[in-house]
Amino acid sequence: MNIKMNTTMHRGASALLGLSRPARFISATTPRHLVARASRYRCLATTDIPQRASTDHNLSLQPQDNGVELSGSFFPRPLKLSYDWLRDSCQCAECVHPSTKQKLFRTGDFVRPVPSDASLAQGALHVQWADGHPSVFSLDFIRRYADPTGQARASSHFEDVMARRPWDLSRLPSERFVDFASIKNDPLPAYLQLLRYGILIVRGVPHESTQRGPEGPAGVSEMAGLLGLVRETFYGKLWDVISARASTNIAYTNLNLDLHMDLQYMQHPPHIQLLHCIKNRVEGGTSVFVDAIKAANDLWEQDRASFEVLAQTPIPFHYENDGHHLHHSHPTIQLVHSHLEPANPSVPPRIAHINYSPPFQAPLPPDISPLVYTALRKYADLLARPEGRFEYTLAEGDCAVFDNRRVLHARTAFWDKNAREGKAEETNRWLKGCYVEVDDLLDRTRVLLAKRGSTAGL
Amino acid sequence: MNIKMNTTMHRGASALLGLSRPARFISATTPRHLVARASRYRCLATTDIPQRASTDHNLSLQPQDNGVELSGSFFPRPLKLSYDWLRDSCQCAECVHPSTKQKLFRTGDFVRPVPSDASLAQGALHVQWADGHPSVFSLDFIRRYADPTGQARASSHFEDVMARRPWDLSRLPSERFVDFASIKNDPLPAYLQLLRYGILIVRGVPHESTQRGPEGPAGVSEMAGLLGLVRETFYGKLWDVISARASTNIAYTNLNLDLHMDLQYMQHPPHIQLLHCIKNRVEGGTSVFVDAIKAANDLWEQDRASFEVLAQTPIPFHYENDGHHLHHSHPTIQLVHSHLEPANPSVPPRIAHINYSPPFQAPLPPDISPLVYTALRKYADLLARPEGRFEYTLAEGDCAVFDNRRVLHARTAFWDKNAREGKAEETNRWLKGCYVEVDDLLDRTRVLLAKRGSTAGL
Repeated sequence: MNIKMNTTMHRGASALLGLSRPARFISATTPRHLVARASRYRCLATTDIPQRASTDHNLSLQPQDNGVELSGSFFPRPLKLSYDWLRDSCQCAECVHPSTKQKLFRTGDFVRPVPSDASLAQGALHVQWADGHPSVFSLDFIRRYADPTGQARASSHFEDVMARRPWDLSRLPSERFVDFASIKNDPLPAYLQLLRYGILIVRGVPHESTQRGPEGPAGVSEMAGLLGLVRETFYGKLWDVISARASTNIAYTNLNLDLHMDLQYMQHPPHIQLLHCIKNRVEGGTSVFVDAIKAANDLWEQDRASFEVLAQTPIPFHYENDGHHLHHSHPTIQLVHSHLEPANPSVPPRIAHINYSPPFQAPLPPDISPLVYTALRKYADLLARPEGRFEYTLAEGDCAVFDNRRVLHARTAFWDKNAREGKAEETNRWLKGCYVEVDDLLDRTRVLLAKRGSTAGL
Repeated sequence: MNIKMNTTMHRGASALLGLSRPARFISATTPRHLVARASRYRCLATTDIPQRASTDHNLSLQPQDNGVELSGSFFPRPLKLSYDWLRDSCQCAECVHPSTKQKLFRTGDFVRPVPSDASLAQGALHVQWADGHPSVFSLDFIRRYADPTGQARASSHFEDVMARRPWDLSRLPSERFVDFASIKNDPLPAYLQLLRYGILIVRGVPHESTQRGPEGPAGVSEMAGLLGLVRETFYGKLWDVISARASTNIAYTNLNLDLHMDLQYMQHPPHIQLLHCIKNRVEGGTSVFVDAIKAANDLWEQDRASFEVLAQTPIPFHYENDGHHLHHSHPTIQLVHSHLEPANPSVPPRIAHINYSPPFQAPLPPDISPLVYTALRKYADLLARPEGRFEYTLAEGDCAVFDNRRVLHARTAFWDKNAREGKAEETNRWLKGCYVEVDDLLDRTRVLLAKRGSTAGL
């Protein structure tokens, strides 16, 4: 970031906040009304600004209490813009640094700003402030940021294209399988699959030269690098899930590993998980993936009270073993907004994360709501539905990539038919794994979408 | 983790959930009542369990609706334990794996469990379930986990010892300065200082052989390794803040960098930040640190409505520049619990993080509460109080370590007196930085505290 790389490029905020500085103009077309018509702390009366109209896009500007209303064919609906918002959103070179794009003052530095004039000209909204500062807002800026529904802003961040799509087997597209070579060539389809559905099986990830240990070398590192940045944990940058052939206690491998998420005992569990199959010489051992957001949405449809108790009750997780002592509590259903009232009462509230990992659950608080026990039972039943289970047995070279904050993973029992013939202690199943943060994946996806120019067909 | 390192050690959950399996006992002293006295779905009537008493610690057991009440000198208050909680908390080897400590069933697998007997014996609570399963709870387990205040559990995780302590200059202890050699010898005091106050100045961190670039080598890597694991971001594992002597535009360096936090446009901003001074040949450039939680607590005392609006209103941050496109919204004051009602109305609600970074703020939503503008002004005023500013000019070898989710940082203007004499473009100020996650720091601190045996004097 520029703030770190070269401070000589920066203009500090404090030096630019003085109201006594001469006003600086964006361009020669900016109207200039340096003489304030209103005292600093008097709000402009509604009648002080004459109604202006522009022929562009049938734009019209109506004065309102503490702001203006802007309408025209360019906007889906009339926009009410307060003077507070307009002053705070000024994009001039004194207010937003032209190269770093950093905001050069703080919200609250201009409380109750006093305008002296507001007008439409050259396809832009011009506001002249009583302290001499001029602001100019392009229609593109207003359309992106001033719509109270937030839709245009969200689209400009590609939130609609990248939005999570709850799935069961009938809705999981064939794009969940992708070749490593095709990701290297064009990663965007895989990025979108991962962001939308939280599950991706990459075939043909180089595995032959993978070595044991936290540093590799390992093909999964190359795969991780295509997605984002590795998040190291106390298990290492890379870790191994290894099963050894041991005919004397073969019974021990005949087991399930139930649906769970990794590292829920951390404040911030890793977001994306990769499991790369290096060796598979066993029967069984099928991987299972379930969309925990789909199950939560269905719980909301079927049993609102259970949904709410799972959204409001912190569940403790812990790991006190093996020289470590971690613990953290998370609600099972972590909402984007802290309140439960959805904007649209027919749609479930937006879910940020699911936090579900029975094996790492600590004893519950003794006074926890009795509804938690039944709500977790109902949720487990929804997670167990056959139509929600994507089952796939990883072949050597396959890499499962999934969203550890949303998609649960499990593994069925496996056994080694050749246990009595092979050499005891020989490795018969080996997965190499790592975690990746999501912010870089989101960043890369947005940049690729912006380069593409159009999201048609995606 | 064992789950990853050797699956042959695991017993899966599903195989162990069958109620028809023969019961397995913890020890020979466990009372055995295999014949159920109650049908599976009938709750035990209050009178079904005779009152038991034990001479140990004056323990006594009282049957209650759907549970028992346990009292005695061992506990600060009588404990109400529901059968739901008791069955879910069973610690026997069938329910919690003896070596991995993983829970082997799911909460909700035993809804409305039916007891057939409950008793005190050998200093433990014994519950016999109607399905044949026996549970034994040691008094230590009950004292740690069954207190509804949660105090004993919190103490067992050292939460009281590590708790954040809001500070202004009068309360910031001299332990904020520590020598690198002393951290290497005994890191615990530095860990506690960092967790409690969020600020630490480490002196004498090797800087002579530090190289530019994201891979180093760099002394700050060694310092980071003493605290936890480096969190890589798109700025690299390590990054450089470099100012070059350039007499032709010396004016550009005469600037403030106002109070901010790094990377607020990420879903998960990095937690701990390190800034290691490699070179300092300028005047000024003092670092400033402010406890944003102290200011938030003071806002709560002075203006409850402003506190609440800052806790409930997401503020958008963005970074759309330089080939990147990141954005995320966070409330300025992020509470531990989503609701605002504190358990104790005379104490501010617990704060998880502060999210405050005016330079990276995106345009606000146009319909944002008008109170946000005044609330952010009040908060900025509290942050600006001289008594809250810890100012320190980093010398070469000093490393500032601070909690980027709580402590704001800033830098005053600096200038180069020798600009006209020295070689233009020569580096006159160079900081090397990196980020570290907090979960490992918490883990290491708890392990050291447990080894110490006593927290007296800490």
